[in-house]
Amino acid sequence: KHIVLLPGDGIGPEVVSAAKRILDAVAGRLNLTLTYEEHLIGGCAMDAQGTALSQDTLHACQRADAVLLGAVGGPKWDDPAAPVRPEQGLLALRKGLGVFANLRPVRVYPTLVDASPLRAEKLQGVDLLVVRELTGGLYFGQPKGRFEENGRVRAVDTLEYWDYEIERILDLSFQLAQSRRGKLTLVDKANVLESSRLWRQIATDMASRYPQVTLETVLVDTAAMRLVSQPAAFDVIVTENMFGDILTDEAAVLSGSMGLLPSASLGKATPGLYEPIHGSAPDIAGQGIANPLGTILSVAMMLRYSFQLEQGARAVEQAVERALAEGCRTRDLGGSLTTAEMTDAVLQRLA
Amino acid sequence: KHIVLLPGDGIGPEVVSAAKRILDAVAGRLNLTLTYEEHLIGGCAMDAQGTALSQDTLHACQRADAVLLGAVGGPKWDDPAAPVRPEQGLLALRKGLGVFANLRPVRVYPTLVDASPLRAEKLQGVDLLVVRELTGGLYFGQPKGRFEENGRVRAVDTLEYWDYEIERILDLSFQLAQSRRGKLTLVDKANVLESSRLWRQIATDMASRYPQVTLETVLVDTAAMRLVSQPAAFDVIVTENMFGDILTDEAAVLSGSMGLLPSASLGKATPGLYEPIHGSAPDIAGQGIANPLGTILSVAMMLRYSFQLEQGARAVEQAVERALAEGCRTRDLGGSLTTAEMTDAVLQRLA
Ligand SMILES: CC(C)[C@H](C(=O)O)[C@@H](O)C(=O)O
Ligand SMILES: CC(C)[C@H](C(=O)O)[C@@H](O)C(=O)O
Repeated sequence: KHIVLLPGDGIGPEVVSAAKRILDAVAGRLNLTLTYEEHLIGGCAMDAQGTALSQDTLHACQRADAVLLGAVGGPKWDDPAAPVRPEQGLLALRKGLGVFANLRPVRVYPTLVDASPLRAEKLQGVDLLVVRELTGGLYFGQPKGRFEENGRVRAVDTLEYWDYEIERILDLSFQLAQSRRGKLTLVDKANVLESSRLWRQIATDMASRYPQVTLETVLVDTAAMRLVSQPAAFDVIVTENMFGDILTDEAAVLSGSMGLLPSASLGKATPGLYEPIHGSAPDIAGQGIANPLGTILSVAMMLRYSFQLEQGARAVEQAVERALAEGCRTRDLGGSLTTAEMTDAVLQRLA
Repeated sequence: KHIVLLPGDGIGPEVVSAAKRILDAVAGRLNLTLTYEEHLIGGCAMDAQGTALSQDTLHACQRADAVLLGAVGGPKWDDPAAPVRPEQGLLALRKGLGVFANLRPVRVYPTLVDASPLRAEKLQGVDLLVVRELTGGLYFGQPKGRFEENGRVRAVDTLEYWDYEIERILDLSFQLAQSRRGKLTLVDKANVLESSRLWRQIATDMASRYPQVTLETVLVDTAAMRLVSQPAAFDVIVTENMFGDILTDEAAVLSGSMGLLPSASLGKATPGLYEPIHGSAPDIAGQGIANPLGTILSVAMMLRYSFQLEQGARAVEQAVERALAEGCRTRDLGGSLTTAEMTDAVLQRLA
């Protein structure tokens, strides 16, 4: 298996090299041969190559079996008016790989309930999976730009979805719900948005093909409320790109730290893209204290979804669980372990 | 002063008539003469007049000094694919009145911290005001519709803002921040959206005109996180229509019940529109048990913003505070008071 590493900016390189140690250890145990290739993305790519994602890098990713990404961006490149921005590298990579489904599981580790702003009783039983559409909607729709008319300025973004873009992600979401607790929540704004009405219609039609799954539809404003007031009521949530961006960050709070949460971005006949959901955290970059667990758990998702190594995935997840249960904590969780020490702690507990 | 009442659907009529009792009592004390006129909006208007907002009703609102609305919608009209929907009445009213600024204050009453899913220590000092843009963005931009092309369906909504739409609401938001704790947070997605980049540019330029206000810009995903993890850090938040819809419902959770929260929608040279932020709550409609406080506090905002009666506004707010502090609770807050009893409790405490 050939893996492209895209460490990116800020703490990206630190967490990616930590996760690579875990990947190597699992591969050793499973007699899997892994080869790696490293490329630039984001701000560091802008500095070195004048673009946030070079064609060479994109092609290397397209040829790989899986891609592991750290994070992009930082204050050095933080001018939203600049013609090139680090985030464009990430968006171009997602689009270029065609990874339309971004899976973001949110779990609450019993040992970490104190780290969450929510009351402990609200967190009981929280185990949800957000499936965010990743290559459509407001992020990519055209027209997108600024237009001058009669001395006035108009700025436009377009929320656009084709039926087949909605169908493929709903199909995957129904399957995921079927393999879990059998509940799928479509989050939309069908009382206001035409695009949401199409999502809702396609979902309702598709539901008859998945009799074991219960489909519910919830308006995005209500969903933002329920994620905090009744988070345990959700199983699989599926939603469009922008709503998914907002709701997954909100849901991340439940777990106690953004640093813990992994993601997998999947498409059809394309390598999966794996990344922690946290950002480049410039304030702690270079200090070796970032929480590597979000990236380590992303590697577990890679084993599961790109290599069909469910056992390997479970082994990593259980090692992380045990490390947390036994009190291992990085700074973001109120502890003092370094990135390397936390990684060691997981390695030692790998079955 | 002439007021148009739009009770609407579900619990709307119950909470509006409760709030009218408060309004009458305050008017009596302040020697203010109020006249009323009642009209239909939403589902009941669709049933009686075939439209969710008739031209007559809109004109009556435009001629009034202020408009008090209950809620619209319900299962009877809940087909998002229907050609006419109750929500369209509300959207047409907002647009028709030109009330571009929707003010949604979120307070946490010390006596209600146990009703919130957040830990008590997180709620300390929470006192924020969301200013949501209400007549632009994805709700109204054109094109908006469904298009067939080569046997495939494409659905489109348009996020569009003109510079003057952004300027007028930012101007108001800076002023509101200046009259409060001096902090203004612009919530946008400037790393992805062109419209957000225009918001950010105009806000940054305008900041020099308000030296007493500190402007910060926060990405919408981060804001969704911080509203739960550090809610006390916010003072005034300003944002576009769709983000505001999501974030205000999320923020409402802090207070312990949606039933408590008021809103004012303001424009230039137009009557203000006042409504609780909760919906029509069809499950409890007609039972006389809805919480009237969101509508009563909306009446306080009417006294403040439409009639410049700050004293009257304060009197209502303090009466509500005292009723809550002395243990008065409707069903949503874990008590057993009816709508009428809670209203009586506030009336008795009106200074
Ligand atoms: C960096 C940014 C473009 C990105 C997004 O909005 O998708 C990030 O917030 C995320 O959620 O992965
Ligand atoms: C009913 C709906 C159209 C409305 C909105 O989205 O604006 C509601 O959610 C609100 O927040 O007032």
